[in-house]
Amino acid sequence: MEKGKMLYEGKAKQIFETNNPNEVIVRFKDDATAFNAQKRGSVDLKGEMNNAITTLIFEYLSQKGIATHFIKQLDEREQLVKKVNIIPLEMVVRNYSAGSMAKRLGVEEGIKSPVTIFDLCLKNDELGDPLINDHHAVFLGVATYEELDEMYELTSDINDILIELFGRMNIILVDFKIELGKTADGKIILADEISPDTCRLWDKETMKKLDKDRFRRDLGEVTEAYVEIYERLKKVLGK
Amino acid sequence: MEKGKMLYEGKAKQIFETNNPNEVIVRFKDDATAFNAQKRGSVDLKGEMNNAITTLIFEYLSQKGIATHFIKQLDEREQLVKKVNIIPLEMVVRNYSAGSMAKRLGVEEGIKSPVTIFDLCLKNDELGDPLINDHHAVFLGVATYEELDEMYELTSDINDILIELFGRMNIILVDFKIELGKTADGKIILADEISPDTCRLWDKETMKKLDKDRFRRDLGEVTEAYVEIYERLKKVLGK
Repeated sequence: MEKGKMLYEGKAKQIFETNNPNEVIVRFKDDATAFNAQKRGSVDLKGEMNNAITTLIFEYLSQKGIATHFIKQLDEREQLVKKVNIIPLEMVVRNYSAGSMAKRLGVEEGIKSPVTIFDLCLKNDELGDPLINDHHAVFLGVATYEELDEMYELTSDINDILIELFGRMNIILVDFKIELGKTADGKIILADEISPDTCRLWDKETMKKLDKDRFRRDLGEVTEAYVEIYERLKKVLGK
Repeated sequence: MEKGKMLYEGKAKQIFETNNPNEVIVRFKDDATAFNAQKRGSVDLKGEMNNAITTLIFEYLSQKGIATHFIKQLDEREQLVKKVNIIPLEMVVRNYSAGSMAKRLGVEEGIKSPVTIFDLCLKNDELGDPLINDHHAVFLGVATYEELDEMYELTSDINDILIELFGRMNIILVDFKIELGKTADGKIILADEISPDTCRLWDKETMKKLDKDRFRRDLGEVTEAYVEIYERLKKVLGK
């Protein structure tokens, strides 16, 4: 398997082609951005930690029956994945109020929701990844109502598995964002990453934030938070 | 029936109590605001026109089986309605792209949607009446999922009736906003108003805007637009 030219560079990852047209390499960068890239920086070890954490989580989800794009970890920064067409929607799941939702609704952070909250956001940097609804997605032609139903079901299943996994790590899964992709044969599977960049993770005892909010809000000990999540994850998975 | 003290004053209407605890008087003002009250003004005859237009439309909807708060018109500016608890959600229906949705999705105005688009907004001036979704509404405790289903069905029925009515007036119903209220016995019925303040109405031939966008966008001939809608409505209803 050879690493070919770069196909795409995002804020935190690069994608490279391989000599297999159905597989690509994901390279995790240390670059960090927040607030639609208005805040920029770098977090030591972030690329390595997110690669390792995503590897462990995607392997675990796969064992639990979730179809993912993950094939294997290649080295400290890279993993091999199935090539998919990313559906330009962010599937956000919220178990507690926080971030943009708390601001939008004018509520405090950290309120446990009696129902699982799903937010659909349009992946579009220029528009600031706006919150949309199912009708907007269908209007734009990015998904059908049937596909959206399937996507919410998959997202809900992933939430159930992750709440249990992070629970064993003594972590509250406040919220997270996933991206889904379509394979060549039209199957919708989990893609992108699941890491402290894409989740809000609070220590159950101390409520300490162990995620990208440490970077967003200048809370310090950013690298330490990513390493902490990786260490706890390895421990509960017996790795 | 006596007019008592003012219970509430909104941007375009006042509500007065009556000697019947189940009925209130709505008084339509000429005041106009836009962009969350950042733009303020007054439109000659607007109060009278919106009172008259809402009267005709609510009577028509009632004939078609829609439960509304409307009882009777009292004079040029006032109508008597059933007292309800307004559900703090704006039910927005869009048949064509326009306004905040066009901006949010980065699309042109005037694109016919292949599906009916329902937007749910939280009625909260401080927060700028943000777009939310069903989960947020349930989280906030303002409605249950079952109530929301009922509210969308009612809104969809109203849209079908209004598309046909405005169609006969040679008008495209681009989008509109309604508010629903709960009666003392828990029934959800149509409240507030339906007028050029709350609808986008475009002439089918010329595409001329005949609604509050003439005020919002300083297009001139604002009063004329409201009068034009009233005249066409009277004509098709044989009044």
